[in-house]
Amino acid sequence: MKKLVSLGELLMRLSCEDALRFSQVNNFKVAYGGSEANVLITAANFGLETEFLSVLPENDLGKSALNDLRNSNVGLNHIKFQGERLGLYFLEPGAINRPGKIIYDRQNSAFSKIDPEWFDWEEIFKDCNWFHWSGITPAISEKAAQVCLHAVETAKSKGIKVSGDLNYRGNLWQYEGANPKEIMSQLVDKTDVLLAGSYACSQFFDIKNIQNNSELSKALIQKFPALQRIAITNREEINASHHKWSADLFTESTLLSSTEYNIYPIVDRVGTGDSFMGALIYGLQHFKDQKALDFATAASCLKHSIVGDFNRVSKEEVFELIEGDGSGRIKR
Amino acid sequence: MKKLVSLGELLMRLSCEDALRFSQVNNFKVAYGGSEANVLITAANFGLETEFLSVLPENDLGKSALNDLRNSNVGLNHIKFQGERLGLYFLEPGAINRPGKIIYDRQNSAFSKIDPEWFDWEEIFKDCNWFHWSGITPAISEKAAQVCLHAVETAKSKGIKVSGDLNYRGNLWQYEGANPKEIMSQLVDKTDVLLAGSYACSQFFDIKNIQNNSELSKALIQKFPALQRIAITNREEINASHHKWSADLFTESTLLSSTEYNIYPIVDRVGTGDSFMGALIYGLQHFKDQKALDFATAASCLKHSIVGDFNRVSKEEVFELIEGDGSGRIKR
Amino acid sequence: MKKLVSLGELLMRLSCEDALRFSQVNNFKVAYGGSEANVLITAANFGLETEFLSVLPENDLGKSALNDLRNSNVGLNHIKFQGERLGLYFLEPGAINRPGKIIYDRQNSAFSKIDPEWFDWEEIFKDCNWFHWSGITPAISEKAAQVCLHAVETAKSKGIKVSGDLNYRGNLWQYEGANPKEIMSQLVDKTDVLLAGSYACSQFFDIKNIQNNSELSKALIQKFPALQRIAITNREEINASHHKWSADLFTESTLLSSTEYNIYPIVDRVGTGDSFMGALIYGLQHFKDQKALDFATAASCLKHSIVGDFNRVSKEEVFELIEGDGSGRIKR
Amino acid sequence: MKKLVSLGELLMRLSCEDALRFSQVNNFKVAYGGSEANVLITAANFGLETEFLSVLPENDLGKSALNDLRNSNVGLNHIKFQGERLGLYFLEPGAINRPGKIIYDRQNSAFSKIDPEWFDWEEIFKDCNWFHWSGITPAISEKAAQVCLHAVETAKSKGIKVSGDLNYRGNLWQYEGANPKEIMSQLVDKTDVLLAGSYACSQFFDIKNIQNNSELSKALIQKFPALQRIAITNREEINASHHKWSADLFTESTLLSSTEYNIYPIVDRVGTGDSFMGALIYGLQHFKDQKALDFATAASCLKHSIVGDFNRVSKEEVFELIEGDGSGRIKR
Amino acid sequence: MKKLVSLGELLMRLSCEDALRFSQVNNFKVAYGGSEANVLITAANFGLETEFLSVLPENDLGKSALNDLRNSNVGLNHIKFQGERLGLYFLEPGAINRPGKIIYDRQNSAFSKIDPEWFDWEEIFKDCNWFHWSGITPAISEKAAQVCLHAVETAKSKGIKVSGDLNYRGNLWQYEGANPKEIMSQLVDKTDVLLAGSYACSQFFDIKNIQNNSELSKALIQKFPALQRIAITNREEINASHHKWSADLFTESTLLSSTEYNIYPIVDRVGTGDSFMGALIYGLQHFKDQKALDFATAASCLKHSIVGDFNRVSKEEVFELIEGDGSGRIKR
Amino acid sequence: MKKLVSLGELLMRLSCEDALRFSQVNNFKVAYGGSEANVLITAANFGLETEFLSVLPENDLGKSALNDLRNSNVGLNHIKFQGERLGLYFLEPGAINRPGKIIYDRQNSAFSKIDPEWFDWEEIFKDCNWFHWSGITPAISEKAAQVCLHAVETAKSKGIKVSGDLNYRGNLWQYEGANPKEIMSQLVDKTDVLLAGSYACSQFFDIKNIQNNSELSKALIQKFPALQRIAITNREEINASHHKWSADLFTESTLLSSTEYNIYPIVDRVGTGDSFMGALIYGLQHFKDQKALDFATAASCLKHSIVGDFNRVSKEEVFELIEGDGSGRIKR
Repeated sequence: MKKLVSLGELLMRLSCEDALRFSQVNNFKVAYGGSEANVLITAANFGLETEFLSVLPENDLGKSALNDLRNSNVGLNHIKFQGERLGLYFLEPGAINRPGKIIYDRQNSAFSKIDPEWFDWEEIFKDCNWFHWSGITPAISEKAAQVCLHAVETAKSKGIKVSGDLNYRGNLWQYEGANPKEIMSQLVDKTDVLLAGSYACSQFFDIKNIQNNSELSKALIQKFPALQRIAITNREEINASHHKWSADLFTESTLLSSTEYNIYPIVDRVGTGDSFMGALIYGLQHFKDQKALDFATAASCLKHSIVGDFNRVSKEEVFELIEGDGSGRIKR
Repeated sequence: MKKLVSLGELLMRLSCEDALRFSQVNNFKVAYGGSEANVLITAANFGLETEFLSVLPENDLGKSALNDLRNSNVGLNHIKFQGERLGLYFLEPGAINRPGKIIYDRQNSAFSKIDPEWFDWEEIFKDCNWFHWSGITPAISEKAAQVCLHAVETAKSKGIKVSGDLNYRGNLWQYEGANPKEIMSQLVDKTDVLLAGSYACSQFFDIKNIQNNSELSKALIQKFPALQRIAITNREEINASHHKWSADLFTESTLLSSTEYNIYPIVDRVGTGDSFMGALIYGLQHFKDQKALDFATAASCLKHSIVGDFNRVSKEEVFELIEGDGSGRIKR
Repeated sequence: MKKLVSLGELLMRLSCEDALRFSQVNNFKVAYGGSEANVLITAANFGLETEFLSVLPENDLGKSALNDLRNSNVGLNHIKFQGERLGLYFLEPGAINRPGKIIYDRQNSAFSKIDPEWFDWEEIFKDCNWFHWSGITPAISEKAAQVCLHAVETAKSKGIKVSGDLNYRGNLWQYEGANPKEIMSQLVDKTDVLLAGSYACSQFFDIKNIQNNSELSKALIQKFPALQRIAITNREEINASHHKWSADLFTESTLLSSTEYNIYPIVDRVGTGDSFMGALIYGLQHFKDQKALDFATAASCLKHSIVGDFNRVSKEEVFELIEGDGSGRIKR
Repeated sequence: MKKLVSLGELLMRLSCEDALRFSQVNNFKVAYGGSEANVLITAANFGLETEFLSVLPENDLGKSALNDLRNSNVGLNHIKFQGERLGLYFLEPGAINRPGKIIYDRQNSAFSKIDPEWFDWEEIFKDCNWFHWSGITPAISEKAAQVCLHAVETAKSKGIKVSGDLNYRGNLWQYEGANPKEIMSQLVDKTDVLLAGSYACSQFFDIKNIQNNSELSKALIQKFPALQRIAITNREEINASHHKWSADLFTESTLLSSTEYNIYPIVDRVGTGDSFMGALIYGLQHFKDQKALDFATAASCLKHSIVGDFNRVSKEEVFELIEGDGSGRIKR
Repeated sequence: MKKLVSLGELLMRLSCEDALRFSQVNNFKVAYGGSEANVLITAANFGLETEFLSVLPENDLGKSALNDLRNSNVGLNHIKFQGERLGLYFLEPGAINRPGKIIYDRQNSAFSKIDPEWFDWEEIFKDCNWFHWSGITPAISEKAAQVCLHAVETAKSKGIKVSGDLNYRGNLWQYEGANPKEIMSQLVDKTDVLLAGSYACSQFFDIKNIQNNSELSKALIQKFPALQRIAITNREEINASHHKWSADLFTESTLLSSTEYNIYPIVDRVGTGDSFMGALIYGLQHFKDQKALDFATAASCLKHSIVGDFNRVSKEEVFELIEGDGSGRIKR
Repeated sequence: MKKLVSLGELLMRLSCEDALRFSQVNNFKVAYGGSEANVLITAANFGLETEFLSVLPENDLGKSALNDLRNSNVGLNHIKFQGERLGLYFLEPGAINRPGKIIYDRQNSAFSKIDPEWFDWEEIFKDCNWFHWSGITPAISEKAAQVCLHAVETAKSKGIKVSGDLNYRGNLWQYEGANPKEIMSQLVDKTDVLLAGSYACSQFFDIKNIQNNSELSKALIQKFPALQRIAITNREEINASHHKWSADLFTESTLLSSTEYNIYPIVDRVGTGDSFMGALIYGLQHFKDQKALDFATAASCLKHSIVGDFNRVSKEEVFELIEGDGSGRIKR
């Protein structure tokens, strides 16, 4: 079976327990995550073969970071152990009307010093049929941006399907010479399936004054005619513990829409967008568009009930939700 | 005071913490439960004298299992310590749209090898005015079915009131020669007060195409004319954390209905049906039918806020809820 | 900058974990609180200079009690270490329709033996521009009532602004000779800004058959003509985990009203009224009345998301909520 | 079977976790204990019938306090629920050269207001063959001293065996009119079996300048000629985690000595003396003197490995240790 | 690189926390272990290629059981998911003079129903250079004994090196027709390297009245002339927290001896023998006999500091200990 | 009272729980520490006035870092909030023969960018009578080295007593242009009281082939004639849980020696050297040399029983240990 490959940083996540604030904690819960790893683990849970390209420091923390990926059968044959520090993020989950907070501490991480020379691209793409990137990687460092672009261009040149997630993060893109508009345009230009959002499009591509997802999709396709499908998730945040969640998929000039899920009380919302993306990649390989969209929306709805960045739900659990059983009734 | 007696298995419950899935846990929370023990502890909390008949293994786990029952003043004078293993169940509580999961590990338990000879039935029924059984016991093993039937017949022959809970569990009834329809018919035939549900009735008694609880009750009484009261709980599962809960009581050709409670966010729903049954038995001994129904519905509504299989609410707390105070205001 | 000064008892709070009942716990979570300390910490978090007057026992528990106050920059220059026991309260938080319970164990505490001679009132009031009292202090002991009245009278005589919170607690006022109506009237008589409630007013001042907050305010002003502002919070308790919360402020014959917040699932409601009071004192010093009311209501809405008696939200977080962002969206 | 009866206070114990100091904890571990209850639970674990006489407050804490006693089959038919507060003690266990610390908070407890009228002494002593007291009870309050003396005198007058533990606590005996020397002399005067120590004897009875346990025993018998046996434990504290432990029993002018145990790393030393006493009472009823001493010393050696005030070891476990297996080898 | 293959059951281990007894716990810590898996994980940590043959139930618990093995790069290509229950064991660790206790609950496990037909033995042994068995497997069930013997005979016939660990467990060997002496003799007869002990030899082979390890080795070789090396560990149990630990290796008529380690305070002793065996297999493939023995002894000494059944120490850490640094000095 | 001032970095410490290894943890315990802060908190606990000079990032982690210092009354009037990241270290405590491990992650911390311009040195030294530095600060960055040297020179020029701790850390001193020998010589040249060790002296000053602490002291004084006192701690590491600990103080050509303490089982050894230094500074201000040495050795002995980097023992507790009570007997 051909593989889904992605490239990205894996971070240690240190999160507050039990609704405590940063100033109150005596323990941090430890987990690992990162947009691209989250996508891969979701897809692997559903049965795709996957391969993760990353750089981790040569120490016990770097090695520990891989455990959850290994347990989910994500391929780890091209992980490079080099450099000194593991990127971190600290998470204070929100509650009721109090927003969650994330403090990133990822500068100068082992990953930020990634070099295209460290990877055997021929070998990597030999058994690959889909390459996924996210807008976080080119935002980390100049080298990360170079490697990401190199990977996308190589994949495209080999006829491999390419997906991307814009993932706008205002607090990244800090390196000298960072030009988000240019590099993101180059990446999207070679992309077949894009997960987009209106704020990211305004920041990266000056697409503004957009009324709805259909308009946004058309504007993107005008700018990047190679795009075949555009997915947009819709999150209505009633409060930090209660969201409504649905998604649209624009394909061949039609906007398909999913069911809207009413999600409360939220267990962990970090990584839900990534779990949508991973499930969409799986779905587009196995189902027609509407079903692929429904599958991705239901999978990411379920992610809100899972602790940690990674989605840990099975295909069967997603199907049950699609087929209308959102009752949460106990399975005995 | 005469006693409520019941017969059943007590299981160790090993449950995941903090919304984690089975694949994520490093600790299991330990509790104990079982349908009949849950009924007794509820009734004992309200002040009934009770006696629990069971078999437990002769080891530290068997002895530990009795602690919560002992603390609630459930009578334990006829517990038999014999055999090797304690039945277990593993619980992964659900969250939002993700269903809870239970993995049973109770085969070959000490209880499954129960023998009617081990109990002094004369002594047991001497001070008994009510015997309760549940459909779980005859589903465990042929011997358990025999003992259950023996107890019900003996109780009936002595003029003791008999209640039962159909408690259909598709994954039990695995023993050779198991004939659920026959044994359950024999049991219900000698029962005065039955807790029933439409799915269980279709499985056990081929009562199908039923429109409402009134029809279901009439169909049951037609089949089992000795039945005096039929209780049916109504659970609407909005998601795993939010249920609506009410109940009906059919008595003398009338269907009485309770208030409907809106229950969220659920703390622990396991054992809520048993807590309804225990409170109904108490109620029917102390109140008129409508009040008994209201008492049982309110008591089981409160059980959703209690960790563990056992209900730990007082009569006074139930009355406050019946009398309309569902505000959860702090008592200082 | 002039200081907000208050006088009160600091209690150790021992609370049950994870929705457990008193009969189930093996651990108590330890925190500290008390109405007046809660007010000060809220005000200090927003930037007021504060000073806390209290008595604590001369042991490790008494010393530990001050840590959170010290961390929030509450002034502790007049704390008296004398006496033997720290007042305690045990908290069983409610869930769904099950009310929370508080068991007080504060009799004969170090604070209850407070003596006006122990404090240098000239020094205390030298840099003070606002004194706050609550109805809990005079309810503790005759000496506490004397000190509270002495402080209020001294403050008033020096032209210092005085605020009070009626805080009716039926289970206090146990000391011999306690006369709640008389002492509370003396205190309110010297108060400029009062946090009141209809039940407290009926108990303390025989103000009954009141239709609404406007009527209540007018009745209070008729009785205590020195009152300049009366604040009243409105809590609708849908269940123990879901409240609606708003407040009114009566000033110059007008009743101003805040937004109503829909608060679920509640993390910790203890101390929310105090956090309203602290924020109102801050607000009245910095904003016009309507904005002060909005600030206090939003700050206390956020307190429902904070573990412990003390509010730990910043001014910026309150402003964001006032300005309409109750989405709880993650800040990255 | 005749019962061992004792009278005493049951306290809630709130202890620091994981070697933390009072100033560091965010949780207290909850347990219950008290010298006389500790003695009874030890004896009950070995199979004696027991009855505990005590007063507890009428609240959820008072009720919870009995759980461990109930689980160990200690008789609780004469517990009086009356009064307001449960006595408490806070424990900071020691480590290495840092001593443990106990802060008592037991004044004005429900027990301290005990009244001899509350108990039906005839009924209590009907099936009693041994009464045990400890020097803590008369140290609590005048009423407690009266009840203790009344119980001892009544027991003695009925020919019931009486044991006592001097248990000197300098920080008790605070009540007005307390006269430790007089009341302790009255108690020991009616006692058959005494657990004594040289410091307690110097404080209570002015027995000073004693060279060894034999001399101490003889001095005691001279003063209290009714004494039949005197037990003295020897604890050499190498550091807070490492003790040597042995005991002597003086009987009929001979001093018997036990093995010395080398105990490290200590899990919990609170209650070890009580567990010696409870095991000695059991031992003296079942074995000859030397074996009774050996049994009590081994049982209390094992208590150092048990968390909480109560000993939870079986007779079989004690015998294995006496018979020389201190290897701690796993039993599979 | 050729692989080390082993066959055995993987159990869930549920252990008490913090020195608590079974009757005290509210949580069990979850880990996984089993003699043969423990051997493989040790060897894999040092760098051997390994393959684990086992049967696990088709449920979430069966899948979770593999996580630690997967993380340590143990090969899992031949795991069979079939059957219903995961074998369990409950562990109450000992402390001071109180022995640890293990309660097994492994009857009727998925593994016990293993069938030789389920495995592709040709494929398994294709890349295998060492097969390891333990005396636990043939003790589980008749089928397990058959598969074990089949594997050993097949390995031997292919010229693959065979090691075994007698691992006598009196409470196993319960199945009908169990003949420990016969089956163990058949297994040892085809074994090159044996981990033996005097008690196991007396039970299995009637080798009695042995004075020392040299005699024991010679007696074994006389009975089983194919044996090339015999390893014997020496554990002196001072108490449950303090052991002395060394080992001997008999080879070509010489008894080599290791250093003796003084081990306290023990963190977790379960699996230390298996960690010796795994390290010995590694050692014999890479070092001369004395160094292999030293390596195995040091590795298993370090295992006493690791929580769980599995050894998690690196080769470098073992070398440091062999080279004399037992200081435990912090590596910065 | 004049103050003890020190300059250094405050790190977040993330440590493994319960003897787990990095690869096993799901939680990190959070604490804060740093050599100079550890010294100040020790001295402040004993009653010195202190002031800490440091740089922390402007975020919630930076603010939280100060809590323990604030609680211990360390002066924080010159803390600079500037920059982005808080330095971290990850701690895996050792056990038995397994060494502890520390992974530093402190590069590019807010502190490393410290600038002498950020501090008002006149103000800082106005009320200062002792300045303390450690060899860690100049090892962090060129700027940190500059600031440290500037502070020492300024202090010396004002006649303020200067102490230093060589604190050799091989993995620091990584910045471009780092010249440990030169900068350390400049610092020691202006130092009155030095905590030294033979390895550090060989690395920094080429003082080699030293036989004993007396020789080492003399060699240092020859090189740095301004030195008045040299302290050297002696740690014998029997294993990671058992150390012997003593210290020497060289003063006026005499070597004074302390008692040797036998310390097991160690709770936390990180920061024990700093707690020696802090206690020595206190001691030299209050006692004669021998008593100062005894005080410092006993204080740091007790630190081995305290969780976290900071010493939390009182002067009274140190005196009790000095006066010979190392029994760890419970204080009631």
